[in-house]
Amino acid sequence: MIIVGELINASRKAITDSIKNRDVEAIQTVARQEHEAGAHYIDVNAGIFLDEEEDYIRWLVQTVQAVVEGPCSIDTPNPRAIEAGLSVHKGTPMINSISLESERYNNMIPFLAGTDCRIVALCMSDEGMPKTAEDRLRVAEKLVNRLVQDRIPLENIFVDPLIQPVSVDKTFGIEFLKAIALIKEKIAGVHTMCGASNISYGLPGRAFVNQTFMSMAIGMGLDGAIVNPLDKRMMGNIIAAEALAGRDNFCMNYIKAHRAGKFEF
Amino acid sequence: MIIVGELINASRKAITDSIKNRDVEAIQTVARQEHEAGAHYIDVNAGIFLDEEEDYIRWLVQTVQAVVEGPCSIDTPNPRAIEAGLSVHKGTPMINSISLESERYNNMIPFLAGTDCRIVALCMSDEGMPKTAEDRLRVAEKLVNRLVQDRIPLENIFVDPLIQPVSVDKTFGIEFLKAIALIKEKIAGVHTMCGASNISYGLPGRAFVNQTFMSMAIGMGLDGAIVNPLDKRMMGNIIAAEALAGRDNFCMNYIKAHRAGKFEF
Repeated sequence: MIIVGELINASRKAITDSIKNRDVEAIQTVARQEHEAGAHYIDVNAGIFLDEEEDYIRWLVQTVQAVVEGPCSIDTPNPRAIEAGLSVHKGTPMINSISLESERYNNMIPFLAGTDCRIVALCMSDEGMPKTAEDRLRVAEKLVNRLVQDRIPLENIFVDPLIQPVSVDKTFGIEFLKAIALIKEKIAGVHTMCGASNISYGLPGRAFVNQTFMSMAIGMGLDGAIVNPLDKRMMGNIIAAEALAGRDNFCMNYIKAHRAGKFEF
Repeated sequence: MIIVGELINASRKAITDSIKNRDVEAIQTVARQEHEAGAHYIDVNAGIFLDEEEDYIRWLVQTVQAVVEGPCSIDTPNPRAIEAGLSVHKGTPMINSISLESERYNNMIPFLAGTDCRIVALCMSDEGMPKTAEDRLRVAEKLVNRLVQDRIPLENIFVDPLIQPVSVDKTFGIEFLKAIALIKEKIAGVHTMCGASNISYGLPGRAFVNQTFMSMAIGMGLDGAIVNPLDKRMMGNIIAAEALAGRDNFCMNYIKAHRAGKFEF
């Protein structure tokens, strides 16, 4: 399971301030915490800054990688910010995220075609957000085909079927879950990915709902998640669910994590 | 989701004593607690007593139904104990459980054929316990066919694909989960059911593992579970997972349960 740490995101007030003040210490503390908790990629997002996004992304990538030995997830559809991030990034980053929307795709692809970047591919097209599992599969197939034609290796693509709040429509959860299984079955070799928190929008006890949903998605074959790795219950859920989904020989990872007492079980 | 309360089981020391002493008060207290926590059926099991099982099952059914307005799950393969339980049971009980093992099937079916009992049908045959999801489906298909020929309505059959410990073989969890989805897809109209606790045998943090697995099974379409309804986290998991699986209009059941503070979320 690929864990992308979501905390360095300018939409969070503390991070907005840290970025504005170029507070190296504050950003590095969060990056280090996420890495130590098990994040494989540190997401960096400066989307709210618009004109300065390019500079800030460059600064964030350098600031994070000065203390974390691992890649970033460059979280923007802005081609200039991607270019800026890539110019300083060490190793192979994740790009979060492209979609089948024409403008977004055409703007981003020149910076990604032929690279080894891991790419989050949202199931979103010019027709909007798909509703059913089958609709998601259709968008995923088109998007993956285009990416492969543009020389992105299949195994570097992480399809995100997109979660919508289950409080709005009771089918939104199950159609997403079925989409994970369907995409893994029909597009053999591709990966899947999601951020979970949208599912619980409008509900009480959101953290618990997100954790429960994550376990269900892992049962369906989910390969990666954009989460808060400092959420000890969420990480405990992911580790247990992976063992239950057959991805943990003799449950050794679960048993070790349980013994270490780092997460909540 | 059908909840069967598992606590009145003679393999538990406190219950052994209560049964031996014909302690009406003790049994009724547990039955009432299970019912109030949301159990739709109160399981009664006196299997360890062998010769007295028949008498004890009769007494347990009467004792439980004197205070609980709801059915029992008569938990025995012993045809005389089934007959005794049925002779005093009010309403429609569940029978836990039949299997495709010849002796068990042939002994039990005369007391069940043509009745309206809900029947738990274990995926177990004379060849032993199946390993893969496909093996489970094959046993389920044969067993369901025989039951239907013996005039058990399809919708009264609850197939239990049987859980084995994931600590023994990492595929045991995922093959069970896939079996749930496969059985629901291929035998349209049949129900599925399980007890969850076997999955965590040999692991630390068993309650958490059981809860996580239950959520994953509900995502696959599980219709019922034999659980401890007094486990507030387990019940919270079931209620949240049901909403996430699309079985709770506007999440009203989840929201109400959350507000009532009866379970842990």
